[in-house]
Amino acid sequence: MAGSSIGTVFKVTTWGESHGAGIGAVVDGCPAGLPLDEEYIQTYLDRRKPGGRDFSTPRKEEDKVKILSGVFEGKTTGTPISLMIENTSQRSGDYGNLATTWRPGHADYGFDVKYGFRDYRGGGRSSGRETAARVAAGAVAMRILEQYGIEVHAWVSAIGPVVCDPDRFDADELQRNPFSMPDAQAAAKAEAYLKELMLEKDSTGSEVTCIATGVPAGIGEPVFDKLDARLGQAIFSIGAVKAVEIGDGKAVVRARGSENNDPFRIRNGKVVKTTNHAGGILGGISDGSDILIRASFKPTPSIFQEQQTVNRDHEEVDLAIKGRHDPVIGPRAAVVVEMMTAMTLADLLLIRMTNRLD
Amino acid sequence: MAGSSIGTVFKVTTWGESHGAGIGAVVDGCPAGLPLDEEYIQTYLDRRKPGGRDFSTPRKEEDKVKILSGVFEGKTTGTPISLMIENTSQRSGDYGNLATTWRPGHADYGFDVKYGFRDYRGGGRSSGRETAARVAAGAVAMRILEQYGIEVHAWVSAIGPVVCDPDRFDADELQRNPFSMPDAQAAAKAEAYLKELMLEKDSTGSEVTCIATGVPAGIGEPVFDKLDARLGQAIFSIGAVKAVEIGDGKAVVRARGSENNDPFRIRNGKVVKTTNHAGGILGGISDGSDILIRASFKPTPSIFQEQQTVNRDHEEVDLAIKGRHDPVIGPRAAVVVEMMTAMTLADLLLIRMTNRLD
Amino acid sequence: MAGSSIGTVFKVTTWGESHGAGIGAVVDGCPAGLPLDEEYIQTYLDRRKPGGRDFSTPRKEEDKVKILSGVFEGKTTGTPISLMIENTSQRSGDYGNLATTWRPGHADYGFDVKYGFRDYRGGGRSSGRETAARVAAGAVAMRILEQYGIEVHAWVSAIGPVVCDPDRFDADELQRNPFSMPDAQAAAKAEAYLKELMLEKDSTGSEVTCIATGVPAGIGEPVFDKLDARLGQAIFSIGAVKAVEIGDGKAVVRARGSENNDPFRIRNGKVVKTTNHAGGILGGISDGSDILIRASFKPTPSIFQEQQTVNRDHEEVDLAIKGRHDPVIGPRAAVVVEMMTAMTLADLLLIRMTNRLD
Amino acid sequence: MAGSSIGTVFKVTTWGESHGAGIGAVVDGCPAGLPLDEEYIQTYLDRRKPGGRDFSTPRKEEDKVKILSGVFEGKTTGTPISLMIENTSQRSGDYGNLATTWRPGHADYGFDVKYGFRDYRGGGRSSGRETAARVAAGAVAMRILEQYGIEVHAWVSAIGPVVCDPDRFDADELQRNPFSMPDAQAAAKAEAYLKELMLEKDSTGSEVTCIATGVPAGIGEPVFDKLDARLGQAIFSIGAVKAVEIGDGKAVVRARGSENNDPFRIRNGKVVKTTNHAGGILGGISDGSDILIRASFKPTPSIFQEQQTVNRDHEEVDLAIKGRHDPVIGPRAAVVVEMMTAMTLADLLLIRMTNRLD
Repeated sequence: MAGSSIGTVFKVTTWGESHGAGIGAVVDGCPAGLPLDEEYIQTYLDRRKPGGRDFSTPRKEEDKVKILSGVFEGKTTGTPISLMIENTSQRSGDYGNLATTWRPGHADYGFDVKYGFRDYRGGGRSSGRETAARVAAGAVAMRILEQYGIEVHAWVSAIGPVVCDPDRFDADELQRNPFSMPDAQAAAKAEAYLKELMLEKDSTGSEVTCIATGVPAGIGEPVFDKLDARLGQAIFSIGAVKAVEIGDGKAVVRARGSENNDPFRIRNGKVVKTTNHAGGILGGISDGSDILIRASFKPTPSIFQEQQTVNRDHEEVDLAIKGRHDPVIGPRAAVVVEMMTAMTLADLLLIRMTNRLD
Repeated sequence: MAGSSIGTVFKVTTWGESHGAGIGAVVDGCPAGLPLDEEYIQTYLDRRKPGGRDFSTPRKEEDKVKILSGVFEGKTTGTPISLMIENTSQRSGDYGNLATTWRPGHADYGFDVKYGFRDYRGGGRSSGRETAARVAAGAVAMRILEQYGIEVHAWVSAIGPVVCDPDRFDADELQRNPFSMPDAQAAAKAEAYLKELMLEKDSTGSEVTCIATGVPAGIGEPVFDKLDARLGQAIFSIGAVKAVEIGDGKAVVRARGSENNDPFRIRNGKVVKTTNHAGGILGGISDGSDILIRASFKPTPSIFQEQQTVNRDHEEVDLAIKGRHDPVIGPRAAVVVEMMTAMTLADLLLIRMTNRLD
Repeated sequence: MAGSSIGTVFKVTTWGESHGAGIGAVVDGCPAGLPLDEEYIQTYLDRRKPGGRDFSTPRKEEDKVKILSGVFEGKTTGTPISLMIENTSQRSGDYGNLATTWRPGHADYGFDVKYGFRDYRGGGRSSGRETAARVAAGAVAMRILEQYGIEVHAWVSAIGPVVCDPDRFDADELQRNPFSMPDAQAAAKAEAYLKELMLEKDSTGSEVTCIATGVPAGIGEPVFDKLDARLGQAIFSIGAVKAVEIGDGKAVVRARGSENNDPFRIRNGKVVKTTNHAGGILGGISDGSDILIRASFKPTPSIFQEQQTVNRDHEEVDLAIKGRHDPVIGPRAAVVVEMMTAMTLADLLLIRMTNRLD
Repeated sequence: MAGSSIGTVFKVTTWGESHGAGIGAVVDGCPAGLPLDEEYIQTYLDRRKPGGRDFSTPRKEEDKVKILSGVFEGKTTGTPISLMIENTSQRSGDYGNLATTWRPGHADYGFDVKYGFRDYRGGGRSSGRETAARVAAGAVAMRILEQYGIEVHAWVSAIGPVVCDPDRFDADELQRNPFSMPDAQAAAKAEAYLKELMLEKDSTGSEVTCIATGVPAGIGEPVFDKLDARLGQAIFSIGAVKAVEIGDGKAVVRARGSENNDPFRIRNGKVVKTTNHAGGILGGISDGSDILIRASFKPTPSIFQEQQTVNRDHEEVDLAIKGRHDPVIGPRAAVVVEMMTAMTLADLLLIRMTNRLD
């Protein structure tokens, strides 16, 4: 099992490399009768597109999704939904020494050791491009969540030292700047910072924050399929993620129980928590509050500075990566975090249907 | 699927509640021919035992493991290994209002919503006691890793504001203090801090650090079963974990690519990385360096202060939890982090055998 | 994965050998709130017991099941149900040359090649005794099916040349003869035949027929998890089964479409089929008719005649198996067929809940 | 989980309906480094093509397979292999009353009950056309088996009352007649029989026999993933199969142990069985002999006679199916049986690699 499937009931399998015929996903286990068309899925894919300007790779993929199966007369049929995105702008193939030299910060070395060789074109299977297939599949999960009034939203909350101020959170701002930041001031600072980095042929880390609202209590299974455990796998499966936090995350180390415990109260006849340090998950099961997730992305490993590395002949060499690469990963990855969250919730929501017979 | 199994080839299923007949694990897919006996497994279980003194719950479980199947004449047979630990000190049953009142910071509410009721004795299935079964199963994984020269070690690196100094790391110290801290000065400070907290009827968060050495390059599958993704699920499946970090973890947000990328070099004829910001995983695949993991544990939610909460009748009530509870989770959880790491590595090591035919 | 688990949502894992501490099963994914106790499960286990008299192995196992977890105050909690049956009558251990000699018709040779050695005591993991754990787990599945008005019944329909006459089918007869045959005349003939075989130190094949009534239409998934495909795996996983048939089974080879197609009609306002050649499954999905299954069991391979075989040193030897062995497998296996059917239906019933959101 | 995946390590997911954009398969877990190209796969697909003449449906699909991912420079990369076959001859869409009327012998009714509606074009997901995707995926499995010297061959052994004589088995004959029969005399009789049936607007059942040679001993896991159990699922997952037999199959019911047990002997220094009643599988594990499988296919349910049935409004109606349909399923299904066998063997061969560490 090359690990290309995720989920138990709502099961997503992705395939494809950066430079083959295309990439795609098969979504198995989607309930029948949901409205679904290519336009709906495309909306999400478009959010993953290179943002334009100087800050993201100008490769002009159209990333047009096609539904190849599983939808009939505008509705899901309950059978597998095959989604495909053709690779339209395959470079003609001058990869220089990338076939034989291991890029620092990339999976090249691991692939070569593991499989004996690798598809070195554009990162092959570990290209960020693989995530487009996840976004397409995640859109199907979103359709399920919509039926339950669940929304999932992710944005960039930090780029290097530039951190968004929650008090300035403005959802409209997300479309206005190329960084998916909800804070115009932070976005302006991030822009300046990135320009500086690009002059220095360098890149920066970033943080993505994700919130799921409307998730009912009772989602997630008690032990290994805890909601946070499944989110942990889903979010860490996105390349470049080095930390995942739920609720207060890393800050809990210094917290006291008396402040970290969220009191339950009754508001308008409903059970609520008056705080949400837990990020909506207690004992692996949703508690009815918002699910709060943060993911830390490492800096883009492809930088234009000369780097020390080694090649397949075990010679030490210097490598200068060419081409164009985003200097920061978060802005294009935010929608991927959103989608991995959506898939996880959809799967556990369906499993939850089987928890009781009544 | 109540989510009680983890792993694809090396597959662990746990069962049991705090106060039933016992708890246990079934390990399926362990290769045949490995030496295994109860003493070996017991060594790990003993590390999970209440540390004694004032700092951990004095429930005197013996936690003696029995091997019920899968081992013949001292060797694993390739068939399922059933491990059982009897519950010997079941309290006679005065749980007061815990049957009807939801403890803040616990899964009680989620369980009640999900299943309609719950086994309220001692936390039921979401009791920390369930982890004893994981430790027993993890010991089997350790036996596999030993054959490859892989070691996994975890310790407490922070308790509240008290942080171990890596420069004072002393492995021998781990057995000397009840906190599994490798730094005697930090342990002394932690002791003082915990005493203070206990007077205040409070608890604190903590951090566990885990390292796996000797892991060959090439472990982990490219997409959803990335080594870090699978570790993410495994570590988050431990109750009370709110953040998981690999390598530099959360610090990557502020890092630059030029400093975060680990250069490859040749040392003694072997490929090495001269730094290890990546924590031994690139693109989801091990790179031959040490695997570095950190887990942030929230403060013990069972505190003796009176807390605001709600009961099954949706009445607001005040709850004062009785009994004895550890004021910090990390010291007893360190070995659990170690074991979840070991299971994950063992599974992906076995899967790796199928990556090539030669 | 040593293949000791079956099912997707309702998932059963069995463990144990003939001569270890015991055998057992973990049932994960059982919905919460079902009434369950040891007495209920025991009813099924008792049906698997050696029938007594001369026709089955006189090993006096009590086969008393214990529920170790997952049930609280008489109801399933939604967490894993651990079931254990202790091995009480372990023979003291003179297995003669069975440790080194491969019994014809048994898995001994395969085990030795596969694992390098095997637990040779009483058949080890491939002992018929393993099926007791399945029966215990299957009883839990039966509890689920009961809630839907589904019943599953199996009986012996043939022993060697002696075939039950459907026109003489008498359910009460099943308890009266030691062969689980529903036809008294056939049972009498079978008794005579088996006596003759035992004098000749020989054994015979047999056939088990199973019917599931009350199964609603719509159970089973379209492609690889067709109801008949999943039943195929479940029934063939019982040792000694060499053929599985659904509905008319093997007879369809000679049938014509015009006679094999079952017409749909309306009776009392409901859709019915006026015949049931399909055995209740069309295109892998239940059609609302009775599910009809037949399993062909080979003759007991342990016979007392001297047989030609080979030992671990690759020497040709003659083997005379000692001890006592049933001369026919069907009578004790009927309840196992019933239970594997029940598990399969329970799993697919739960999965079916996720087919639509409304 | 809509059940569209099969296998644990070598995992195949199929997608697609008769009349969408196409059908396809994703093969995950194929080892790296195997030579693979479209021509190789096409060879197998061509065997599934309508045989021509009067005996199979004249729909002129080209069934040209495309490899969309997972192969680089002629070799598998270890990442998912996406295979697609476009649907080129979609009928323009007069399905008459098939949208609302349930064809006897088909899954229509089950689909409607299960999902609320169905893609009624050409059988939708339960069309025989789905098996083309399996054949493409199975070809990849065949590549793996080749490395071990394993061959899998299937043919039609009976059409209605016409049974091939094993003594006249002639492999060359398989390509000469349109029925995939290895016996020219039987093929001639089958032709006469089918002509007669077609005049009567009727169809017939058939039997496919499959043999796998070169399978080493030790393949298959002891309990639920027995080789025969996994074959049982795989073969029953092919539409229209109503019986699966291993070795002597159904004949074992009448057999005696003394004749059914295959003696082990040493020939040329190797362990062999002098007979093969077991069909190469003992206790669920391969024994080094040929694997022998038989599948019974029901008559094509689409016949041109008027049939009694019911429509979605629960009205009794008469249905006359139009179009062209094969009067017998076996000839085109033989290669599918072969391929499901190959996938099963490939998966269990890879799992077998993890049975021991040495």
